[in-house]
Amino acid sequence: MECIIRPCRAEDCTEVMRMIRELAEFEKMPDQVQTSDQALREDGFANDPFYRCLVAEVAPDGQSRDGHTIVGYAIYFFTYSTWKGRNIYMEDLYVMPEFRGKGIGKKLMSKTAEIGLENQCTQLKFAVLDWNRAAIDFYQGKGAVDLTAAEGWHFFRFEGEPLEQLAQGQPGL
Amino acid sequence: MECIIRPCRAEDCTEVMRMIRELAEFEKMPDQVQTSDQALREDGFANDPFYRCLVAEVAPDGQSRDGHTIVGYAIYFFTYSTWKGRNIYMEDLYVMPEFRGKGIGKKLMSKTAEIGLENQCTQLKFAVLDWNRAAIDFYQGKGAVDLTAAEGWHFFRFEGEPLEQLAQGQPGL
Repeated sequence: MECIIRPCRAEDCTEVMRMIRELAEFEKMPDQVQTSDQALREDGFANDPFYRCLVAEVAPDGQSRDGHTIVGYAIYFFTYSTWKGRNIYMEDLYVMPEFRGKGIGKKLMSKTAEIGLENQCTQLKFAVLDWNRAAIDFYQGKGAVDLTAAEGWHFFRFEGEPLEQLAQGQPGL
Repeated sequence: MECIIRPCRAEDCTEVMRMIRELAEFEKMPDQVQTSDQALREDGFANDPFYRCLVAEVAPDGQSRDGHTIVGYAIYFFTYSTWKGRNIYMEDLYVMPEFRGKGIGKKLMSKTAEIGLENQCTQLKFAVLDWNRAAIDFYQGKGAVDLTAAEGWHFFRFEGEPLEQLAQGQPGL
């Protein structure tokens, strides 16, 4: 099966948004998806984009059962480690279930790593849910290190009201 | 004590690098610091900077015992959540020990949150070591959620040889 990996174009955002929802369903948190294909277009295709995206595309004769030719995607952006310098962060990596086992996920991740190295990044980072054993085995099989298990790093987040209060520096904080 | 929060300038990178090393010592991983003040200048003060930085500066008459007036810093950059849209990520937050308990860390974090909201970010994210109870209490007291504990997210990383192999898409992968 022929499958090319190429940069996402603005007109692909509807397809990427469809797969973002599929991935959130798989991750058992579909209610958390508050973005839209319009937001994706605005945030990824203006000056100073907030993210970059690769898509996996198959030929029309290899399309999915319901007619899709864009069958996977990777979302990434550049970040920074004050210890190791430039980093590339892979926010999402997804391949539609009927296209798995064909090396498409590997190709998307490989291209992301290549882009990282071209930009002098020393690390490729990402997050995985602890119950997603298949993904963890896949990544660890390629040499990834679980920094949460190895060093104890936990992700934290402010959003909504606590974020607003933080920004206002209220005396009550 | 007067203390202003202002954007880091290229000439402050030597002072920021000093504090990056102090923070890594505190985090018990001083050997991991492979950056330099020159790299900080190149990566933060060219076009498309990889990070942005705020510093906390005190007046000369309030300087540290060893003569420093830049006594804290926050490093941040913009990231993206395919579920929630624009994010701001706080990579480091540090205040020199002799200046703690004066609200400087809160000011740095508050300014970071303010910059996030100005840029339509819906989340402020960061990572904390699980044994750093004082930091966790500080953040949770302001409404931060531990996403690793609540949802099971683990940080993963490729670097060195595994990253190179990944980028080359070697058949052995």
